[in-house]
Amino acid sequence: MSLPPLSFVTGGARSGKSAFAERLARLGPATHGYIATAEPWDEEMRDRIARHRLDRGTGWHTVEAPLDLPAALSQTQGAVLIDCATLWLTNHLLADHDLDAETARLLDALARHAAPVIIVSNEVGWGIVPDNALARRFRDAQGRLNQRLAARADLAVAVIAGLPLVLKGTLPGGMA
Amino acid sequence: MSLPPLSFVTGGARSGKSAFAERLARLGPATHGYIATAEPWDEEMRDRIARHRLDRGTGWHTVEAPLDLPAALSQTQGAVLIDCATLWLTNHLLADHDLDAETARLLDALARHAAPVIIVSNEVGWGIVPDNALARRFRDAQGRLNQRLAARADLAVAVIAGLPLVLKGTLPGGMA
Amino acid sequence: MSLPPLSFVTGGARSGKSAFAERLARLGPATHGYIATAEPWDEEMRDRIARHRLDRGTGWHTVEAPLDLPAALSQTQGAVLIDCATLWLTNHLLADHDLDAETARLLDALARHAAPVIIVSNEVGWGIVPDNALARRFRDAQGRLNQRLAARADLAVAVIAGLPLVLKGTLPGGMA
Repeated sequence: MSLPPLSFVTGGARSGKSAFAERLARLGPATHGYIATAEPWDEEMRDRIARHRLDRGTGWHTVEAPLDLPAALSQTQGAVLIDCATLWLTNHLLADHDLDAETARLLDALARHAAPVIIVSNEVGWGIVPDNALARRFRDAQGRLNQRLAARADLAVAVIAGLPLVLKGTLPGGMA
Repeated sequence: MSLPPLSFVTGGARSGKSAFAERLARLGPATHGYIATAEPWDEEMRDRIARHRLDRGTGWHTVEAPLDLPAALSQTQGAVLIDCATLWLTNHLLADHDLDAETARLLDALARHAAPVIIVSNEVGWGIVPDNALARRFRDAQGRLNQRLAARADLAVAVIAGLPLVLKGTLPGGMA
Repeated sequence: MSLPPLSFVTGGARSGKSAFAERLARLGPATHGYIATAEPWDEEMRDRIARHRLDRGTGWHTVEAPLDLPAALSQTQGAVLIDCATLWLTNHLLADHDLDAETARLLDALARHAAPVIIVSNEVGWGIVPDNALARRFRDAQGRLNQRLAARADLAVAVIAGLPLVLKGTLPGGMA
């Protein structure tokens, strides 16, 4: 079975969601795009990005896009993996951009993209209410974004301990 | 298929659990009760309550019940949605009430209610152990309450990114 | 149906995962081992351990093993429940041990154990990124450990509100 037009992969930190999404992307044609939203603003983040790149292996055409996912999507051909919606949202929130407008632009670009897209996101709302207001705003915005992405997705999966839990659609053959 | 006697809907913050529970309630007869447990003690909370009310739309008979859910239940006829167990628990915790006794009273009122009840709750224990002792107490109390409600429920659903994951029972037709 | 060689039970705090794992263990022969990883370093922890012991009831052969799970495993016969991987990991992290080496030793001991093993762990990565670096390190280590345990397990279950959600394998009869 081939990749659906839009796959949404969510989960907690270090749940194996990126690795799962990469396996999903490899079901597509040999070349696949990778849109990285992380910005290496400190050493911990640089380490994390380097480790992700190492885990990912070769065969990816990488585009860096901390903010402008629609432009990055238009630069890729074939199946593309966006990792991840959470850092993209964080970057826009810290830049004080209009999150609803940016989300609308993203959803529009995803709908117009001709090849399969896999987008990775995070679950961040399963803990105690955070003390600080910015964290609460982010948590709300992430929750709303995940709902909107999942509503559009043909396949939606939560990853727990590396294992996929299908929320919507059907896993392509070879991923069960 | 009609609504089961007791439905339990849980999930993270901004997971779409309230919207899902409202769709569930609308499967019942035209009039449905809504028991709100939120108290508007600050502007952020007032905004949140107003947004929820707006999302909910018309056709609800609303009863405010920050603490006494059994009394509120006895004031409603037909299917009723309680949103949510988490704020109810928080209100009792902050008032230093006996949580086990209040939970027993709630479970008893749920069992006696003649019409279908849908109760919304939150998952709050999937993060790092909180620093402060009150948050840890709340986290434990919420986990225990969710276990007790789910044990009584005919239908139990976790909502992730707006999508229902059935934990127990079967989704009524039109909700799958 | 009998117990699979390795069962992995994960979930949030106070989700009922220990109680579920205990029910699973009781499907095995009459005597079952219990390996406790908790260390009673403060009153809250002593209370928690005592409450768990009370909940568990009789019929368990308990071994305390805050750090050396392989040695503890070699002291038990029959089905054994390890509760939990999270405290074991915390103990090694605080002792500044090599987590990868300890994990490899644990996986090796689990593979060599002749009788069924059930290991309980926690989901800790579904909240906001923690402020402090040690919490972030722990969160990453826990996520990686859960992935490795789940990859080896024959049965993997997430517990939400006391209810099991099968991630991998099949629940033994009597547990559905």
